[in-house]
Amino acid sequence: MATMLAVIAVDLPLQPGPLDALLRRAVDRSFHEITVDGDTSTNDTVLLLSGGDGEPLQQVPEPVALAVQHVAERLARMIVEDGEGMSRVMELRIRGGADEAHAREVARAVAGSSLVKTALAGGDPNWGRILAAAATVDQELDPQRLRLTLGGIAVFADGLPLETDQAALDRAFSAPAVKVELDLGLGDGEARMLTSDLTKRYVEINSEYTT
Amino acid sequence: MATMLAVIAVDLPLQPGPLDALLRRAVDRSFHEITVDGDTSTNDTVLLLSGGDGEPLQQVPEPVALAVQHVAERLARMIVEDGEGMSRVMELRIRGGADEAHAREVARAVAGSSLVKTALAGGDPNWGRILAAAATVDQELDPQRLRLTLGGIAVFADGLPLETDQAALDRAFSAPAVKVELDLGLGDGEARMLTSDLTKRYVEINSEYTT
Repeated sequence: MATMLAVIAVDLPLQPGPLDALLRRAVDRSFHEITVDGDTSTNDTVLLLSGGDGEPLQQVPEPVALAVQHVAERLARMIVEDGEGMSRVMELRIRGGADEAHAREVARAVAGSSLVKTALAGGDPNWGRILAAAATVDQELDPQRLRLTLGGIAVFADGLPLETDQAALDRAFSAPAVKVELDLGLGDGEARMLTSDLTKRYVEINSEYTT
Repeated sequence: MATMLAVIAVDLPLQPGPLDALLRRAVDRSFHEITVDGDTSTNDTVLLLSGGDGEPLQQVPEPVALAVQHVAERLARMIVEDGEGMSRVMELRIRGGADEAHAREVARAVAGSSLVKTALAGGDPNWGRILAAAATVDQELDPQRLRLTLGGIAVFADGLPLETDQAALDRAFSAPAVKVELDLGLGDGEARMLTSDLTKRYVEINSEYTT
């Protein structure tokens, strides 16, 4: 999560149990998949309210579950897009992790790396920083198995950087939203993480106000 | 560690075993107690060389152990003081951790927080950010037990911010080296961490070169 208070309301009476499960699942796949600067706040809160006429339901209708998920993802993305001083977002996807926890840990490391985030700010498709950040959490990663794609363009595979159209790559990495996909080649673990870049404006905003 | 190659040489023949132990101890109390931006490099290396006339010693003389420790600390500090775009360092000490690992984890979180590091850049004695960063690794921290001192001035104790001389505090937090001491009030765990601030110049340097 990042610093925020979020409220989602469902116009349908639901039992507390299924409501709680619904919220946890939705938060796990949205608010827990974003990071701005890695810092969190004591007041980070997501509330899911439900109410309406009739007996509270024990079962959450599928369209309601999908709608809550959609709204949670939308709100979470808005937080990143409103990140302090941000100029673009990175949509990071890790595949091929040993398991989901492993993939998520790598995703957090890449999305949290100041070097990756400043490269993103500069529109610099610096694949080395991305691989180095991934390796900070797992030194056993095998370069031969890694496959990295930036903005749909494969840049690293079989242990070597690939020949690419540099102009196209620069363009892709300067877009408002940059897709970064890293396959670790180990297992079925997958994770997503949405993050903003680290800009001079971020530093300015956070170094110049006293609280 | 941060990105670097360090070589320490001892003009005295020592057996590989004690040499290895000596280096590990020294690195643990120097290079492993610094962070610039949290990123590490695949070529981070510290070498300890030993040579000279005579039979290699099995025992490391105490003055040699102290000298190696001193040199390691000195070199490690130089890395932070040479951090990209840095304007001041924070000498962080965590006391009262549940154990040493716990204290070290808290130290890493505080020293690695972008909000703490931008506050440091701004010379802003923002104690709230320091406590919030500590709490990211241990949500069970009891505010009643915490005691925070910035540049020798106590700012938080018994669950409350303390009355301070704001001008003196601002001065202390704007010095080239700022001492930050946080007592968690739990046990005997202690840790040190030396870090640089996060400045606009850091972002400039790291977003504007392509590798």
